[in-house]
Amino acid sequence: MASSSSSSPPPVPQADAFPDGTTDYVPVRKKAYDIRKPHITEMPITWSNWYQHVNWLNTTFIIFIPLAGLVSSYWVPLRFETAVFSVAYYFFAGLGITAGYHRLWAHNSYKATLPLKIFLAAGGSAAVEGSARWWSNLHRSHHRYTDTDKDPYSVRKGLLYSHIGWMVMKQNPRRIGRTDITDLNEDPVVVWQHRNYIKSVITMALIVPTLVCGFGWGDFLGGIVYAGILRIFFIQQATFCVNSLAHWLGDQPFDDRNSPRDHVITALVTLGEGYHNFHHEFPSDFRNAIEWWQYDPTKWFIWTMKQLGLAYNLKTFPQNEIEKGRVQQLQKKLDQKRATLDWGIPLESLPVISWDDFVEQSKNGKAWVAIAGVIHDVGKFIADHPGGKALISSAIGKDATAIFNGGVYNHSHAAHNLLSTMRVGVLRGGCEVEIWKRAQAENKDVAAVTD
Amino acid sequence: MASSSSSSPPPVPQADAFPDGTTDYVPVRKKAYDIRKPHITEMPITWSNWYQHVNWLNTTFIIFIPLAGLVSSYWVPLRFETAVFSVAYYFFAGLGITAGYHRLWAHNSYKATLPLKIFLAAGGSAAVEGSARWWSNLHRSHHRYTDTDKDPYSVRKGLLYSHIGWMVMKQNPRRIGRTDITDLNEDPVVVWQHRNYIKSVITMALIVPTLVCGFGWGDFLGGIVYAGILRIFFIQQATFCVNSLAHWLGDQPFDDRNSPRDHVITALVTLGEGYHNFHHEFPSDFRNAIEWWQYDPTKWFIWTMKQLGLAYNLKTFPQNEIEKGRVQQLQKKLDQKRATLDWGIPLESLPVISWDDFVEQSKNGKAWVAIAGVIHDVGKFIADHPGGKALISSAIGKDATAIFNGGVYNHSHAAHNLLSTMRVGVLRGGCEVEIWKRAQAENKDVAAVTD
Ligand code: HEM
Ligand code: HEM
Ligand SMILES: [Fe+2]
Ligand SMILES: [Fe+2]
Ligand SMILES: [Fe+2]
Ligand SMILES: [Fe+2]
Repeated sequence: MASSSSSSPPPVPQADAFPDGTTDYVPVRKKAYDIRKPHITEMPITWSNWYQHVNWLNTTFIIFIPLAGLVSSYWVPLRFETAVFSVAYYFFAGLGITAGYHRLWAHNSYKATLPLKIFLAAGGSAAVEGSARWWSNLHRSHHRYTDTDKDPYSVRKGLLYSHIGWMVMKQNPRRIGRTDITDLNEDPVVVWQHRNYIKSVITMALIVPTLVCGFGWGDFLGGIVYAGILRIFFIQQATFCVNSLAHWLGDQPFDDRNSPRDHVITALVTLGEGYHNFHHEFPSDFRNAIEWWQYDPTKWFIWTMKQLGLAYNLKTFPQNEIEKGRVQQLQKKLDQKRATLDWGIPLESLPVISWDDFVEQSKNGKAWVAIAGVIHDVGKFIADHPGGKALISSAIGKDATAIFNGGVYNHSHAAHNLLSTMRVGVLRGGCEVEIWKRAQAENKDVAAVTD
Repeated sequence: MASSSSSSPPPVPQADAFPDGTTDYVPVRKKAYDIRKPHITEMPITWSNWYQHVNWLNTTFIIFIPLAGLVSSYWVPLRFETAVFSVAYYFFAGLGITAGYHRLWAHNSYKATLPLKIFLAAGGSAAVEGSARWWSNLHRSHHRYTDTDKDPYSVRKGLLYSHIGWMVMKQNPRRIGRTDITDLNEDPVVVWQHRNYIKSVITMALIVPTLVCGFGWGDFLGGIVYAGILRIFFIQQATFCVNSLAHWLGDQPFDDRNSPRDHVITALVTLGEGYHNFHHEFPSDFRNAIEWWQYDPTKWFIWTMKQLGLAYNLKTFPQNEIEKGRVQQLQKKLDQKRATLDWGIPLESLPVISWDDFVEQSKNGKAWVAIAGVIHDVGKFIADHPGGKALISSAIGKDATAIFNGGVYNHSHAAHNLLSTMRVGVLRGGCEVEIWKRAQAENKDVAAVTD
């Protein structure tokens, strides 16, 4: 379990493994919190301490700086080249998060060569969402403890909390579920990025886009405002949607035990991470969308990298298992729907009526018809019968099993269903013919067996 | 069963009722065919007799005249007023068929007052598709014997046959299934239209539109070509689609025993008759589309007539029964889908293995894990395990029932499904704890019950 660190980078500080195979996440740079002092989150928010509850560093990165960018854009004209580059850089940063942080490092859904890893880590830094190590640790915890209190961004605490609140407000590190990140601690790119996180962010998120726009077409200011700050803001909000929108909007074709949902809108916003119900059910699959017509550019990117020899071992869950999940979930919904419908009085709850009684009652004005050993009161239906009044009336006081089932007309499922709502009793001894046969065998008279 | 004919029109010739409540359709005007002579349809089509197989009257009405209209339209300019009127008249004729012939007379799905009946019979005549009596008789036969040889326009004989072939080619009247039309013979509007069919067709299909266009805006020629002939052609082809397209294109949400299907394209073409799977299952419902967002202008028309006091007793099938049909059909499809999937080797077919054997084999290199009394070979899966190699390996040779089901991680349905594909044996005596308890009770030693 201890990091084997066979290569050059100095070993990352690492806690011992717990008996369940997980490790405590060790922040590496920050001072470890003092577990003897009560954590701020254990105290209620009041007028006098609210500012202590806020994580000011995160708030600066995801709210204040973007706001400043938004305001300054009022004075900075947007040039066409800068706009195009900002969008391209947006995709670069986005893929760093989706193809890198998420599908590669958090889920090991494929393997990447060193150049691709560096590319993805650089993109991830440009998105300003923490280091791959920090992000993946929380994300594994999110999968392992989805919707529980140990889930770092549980949607059960509100849509806003799952979107941004969990970063803006301080969190008790003891609350977050523990996971195993030994594999990440052995990945030199992850470790390097984590150790040099601030440097990489400033370089990739601000310096590089500013220099490209500045030296490319002389737009230093546009570079920092649009390709830098505002682009960061948009990619942050977009990827945050995986934690909020994807647990809130859409269908649940594979499992509805927990909150994850599939929706094309979320997919469009998040470079394909919107088929989140599938993803939580099959997290080790490099795809989030399994149909060719669904929007999953991250999947297309990984597939292209494979063609270029930069990615390999793309994992997919067996199709048979995926279909099984779908069938089971459909069955569950169908059973729920079935339970809301009226399927007629169960046979056990009906009175047992003798053949003679049945015939007698029918003569005395009851509109009773026997079909398949069950007596039905068709009185209210005669006028509505699609086959006409005459035919259905002719069956009153008789056993119509055969004529109902094809003798005259082979009734639809709908007709059988409707029939079951008209049940009033069960014939003693089954259908007429069975009663009659038994009487023959016993050599008795049977009254009223005429046709 | 004999027509009671309490009102003025002379009784329509009518055959005696058969024991199953149906009657033979009596053509009224045409000479009855001689049942001793073999019918032409009983002879194979050859080069020398093919023209005898063709129904030339129908062919003239549905192919030659429309063709002539199409050709003459080359010389006749289409005026705007005539175009607008043709479309309006198209809807009038269409509703005559859908709201009149079909939903009112063939299916009795609502009741109409005399003025509405006259309006609908007039529209039906303008569509040139036979009298309401003839049409409804065949249509009832189509419902009662759908897809069989007795179905007058069975799609099983080909899409073209169901669309137009059944009219272009002569049909053996003895083949068509019999139905009960006593109610139609008692309806004075139906009887009058049937007796005066040719007169009504010429008036409504040709004279009226010609006069309207002629006296309205001086376009006699356009009136006859566009509002008359070509309009007839389009409304005929559109309504024929109910017999062809609606049995060929689309979904079967209520029953797939027979061919009827639901499709929005058919609905668009046929004034709402395209939800044909629903319609065959619930023919007495005045609606064909049950969702508000589906296109069923015939339903909207009938509903509006009700608001105006011209229609009443609009019949709908109970929603509970409709939902039951839907649930049953979904269940059927789900069961079919389920049968195509691999659900793992059934427990009965697995070898029974003792606890000691299981432990022994696991020590000798087999990657066996016992969960819920079943032994699984996880060997090929260890490297792919989303929870990491370490955790799954730690369960080899052990009973992992508890840790798999929440002890360490509460696995998804997908994981349970996957597990079932890895079965290799059944533990003798159930889970480890049960074996252990029994051994305790019997006061025997159990080997290898550690951890
Ligand atoms: C006893 C309860 C009955 C119920 C609940 C019932 C219900 C129905 C329903 C819902 C239909 C519409 C078509 C379908 O769903 O298949 C139908 C049609 C029909 N029924 Fe019945 N029926 C009953 C009895 C009978 C009997 C006893 C006869 C004959 C003796 C009969 C003869 C017909 C015929 C011939 C049709 C076809 C109408 C057509 O499509 O033209 N029904 N019935
Ligand atoms: C024996 C056969 C096993 C199979 C087929 C299996 C399958 C899976 C699958 C498919 C997942 C993905 C998430 C999910 O579907 O819930 C998963 C996750 C996980 N499994 Fe297993 N597992 C097995 C055994 C174990 C054992 C014995 C342990 C613990 C001792 C374990 C611990 C975990 C953990 C902690 C995760 C969560 C990973 C994360 O989301 O970060 N698994 N397993
Ligand atoms: Fe999630
Ligand atoms: Fe994930
Ligand atoms: Fe049909
Ligand atoms: Fe119909």
